[in-house]
Amino acid sequence: MGDPAGIGPEVIAKAWAAREAASLPSFFAVGDVRAIERVWSGPVAPITDLREVAGAFNTALPVLTVEDGGDIVPGHPDADGARCALHSLELAVGLTRSGAAAALVTGPVSKAQLYGIGFSHPGQTEFVAERFGVSKENSVMMLAGPSLRVVPMTTHVPLAHVASMLTIELVVAKGRATARGLRRNFGVAEPRLAFAGFNPHAGESGALGREEIDVLEPAIAQLREEGIIAMGPFAADTMFHQRARDQFDAALCCYHDQALIPLKALHFDEGVNITLGLPVVRTSPDHGTAFALAGQNRAEPGAMIAAIAMAAQAAAHRAACPSL
Amino acid sequence: MGDPAGIGPEVIAKAWAAREAASLPSFFAVGDVRAIERVWSGPVAPITDLREVAGAFNTALPVLTVEDGGDIVPGHPDADGARCALHSLELAVGLTRSGAAAALVTGPVSKAQLYGIGFSHPGQTEFVAERFGVSKENSVMMLAGPSLRVVPMTTHVPLAHVASMLTIELVVAKGRATARGLRRNFGVAEPRLAFAGFNPHAGESGALGREEIDVLEPAIAQLREEGIIAMGPFAADTMFHQRARDQFDAALCCYHDQALIPLKALHFDEGVNITLGLPVVRTSPDHGTAFALAGQNRAEPGAMIAAIAMAAQAAAHRAACPSL
Repeated sequence: MGDPAGIGPEVIAKAWAAREAASLPSFFAVGDVRAIERVWSGPVAPITDLREVAGAFNTALPVLTVEDGGDIVPGHPDADGARCALHSLELAVGLTRSGAAAALVTGPVSKAQLYGIGFSHPGQTEFVAERFGVSKENSVMMLAGPSLRVVPMTTHVPLAHVASMLTIELVVAKGRATARGLRRNFGVAEPRLAFAGFNPHAGESGALGREEIDVLEPAIAQLREEGIIAMGPFAADTMFHQRARDQFDAALCCYHDQALIPLKALHFDEGVNITLGLPVVRTSPDHGTAFALAGQNRAEPGAMIAAIAMAAQAAAHRAACPSL
Repeated sequence: MGDPAGIGPEVIAKAWAAREAASLPSFFAVGDVRAIERVWSGPVAPITDLREVAGAFNTALPVLTVEDGGDIVPGHPDADGARCALHSLELAVGLTRSGAAAALVTGPVSKAQLYGIGFSHPGQTEFVAERFGVSKENSVMMLAGPSLRVVPMTTHVPLAHVASMLTIELVVAKGRATARGLRRNFGVAEPRLAFAGFNPHAGESGALGREEIDVLEPAIAQLREEGIIAMGPFAADTMFHQRARDQFDAALCCYHDQALIPLKALHFDEGVNITLGLPVVRTSPDHGTAFALAGQNRAEPGAMIAAIAMAAQAAAHRAACPSL
């Protein structure tokens, strides 16, 4: 459910209300049932056993309750809410690890609140990866919308640090994990990876920077030797119009904004964050807690609906081809 | 006309053919008339005196001929063609400076070919600015599409050099020139400028980089003191969806790809490059010579049509309010 004072509870409830129109599979929320009740007047079914989900889902939103006290006031986060978000996440991860749930969808949390109660990971993605024993290089954050999937190869670091972090090893590891993730989660048999250049015009043969020559080109050559369809490096500004997007299954970008600018320009209300490289499916709506919107019945559930649908599709692909 | 072996001649001819549907004003091409005839079978009116344009325009594309020999083979650039492009540009600049033409629209050139004949400017924009005695800081490259205008505050430099080039002085100069340019060329009475952060999430209060605190924030404060509506710095990835774009008249971006990625993702076939800060109007379609496409009747004229229409509108705004 994410932070109980954010918009997570509201978009989960709205996703349940849209379950038939959006053809969503059975799902249940994990968190404090009061967080749902504060922002939504529809039917809720508190459960204690996952075997109750299938029977309850048609008529009410099933909620596996995690309570950590506090008042839960929408828009007003506090330490009790952060504890509830963290304990809910821990429980949901455990249920997914054990196979009791087919996939994990995480709601938005407040990093500032989590840090206040001693959480020490950069975000939920890193926490989940650690619980599954997957290293940072081998887990990949992909953002996916209806017509574009992007992978930022570096994420929340100062832009001036990116050049020194871009290594052949990193690019190769991200390329491998992305190709495998596209096969496992999206059923793409022959994934086509397009790499964005670091510099304007992809460096113009070195005239505008050497990261393409020194790092990206050798990494792409290595991936090709391994049989992966790796293309580029391309001028980043000409990669994201429709005709260009049709040529690849994922764009691997050198830094955060290079990946997130086109994704959010095109698909702001429907972007899904999916973590590749885990033994399970994990998705998340690509938006934050939006505390300023919470409790006003104004949150858009599109990204949560897309995150649940993508999790279900990815779980189905994995179940169909468990050996990928 | 730009390089006679590129797609410039073809898109100019197609723009003339679309003159009524696109409500274009009278215009004439400057360059080698054979370049048009090689790729287009429509009517051409070679002229030697601009007073012939108005009479000819309804029935044929007027061409003020500049000949520099050579064969002119579409898709096969050579030095003669580069000389023709440069001499055509020089003549067109002169006609605009003198007031004989109301605005300048430049076709795509090959920098490699121009460098081969001794051209020493980074591009046509810098050449034109120098001819008008306007310094680099005070001329501004803006890319404009139907729902977004962007200004890259730095352009063709390695990304690793950008941080050291971003100074308070540069950002203030670009902000001033952009605000004035929006008033003069677009008739925006109270231009709203949105500045993009340099780092992911606009630096998160310094946790992800200090360029926002050290450069962008003081520059924005100075612009506000001067009465300019300057906003930000904003997280660049959340600035370019429709609801965000509605809040500003131009986005000022720290580097090339930050500006060009969203513009081309949204408006690939209709982007116009307009140079602000000149005493005349100068626009250009936001695409290159596309030699591989030349002579096949496959070039899209949308950007050239948009460039001519924007030039006419900007000239009309300037004529209506010459004191801005």
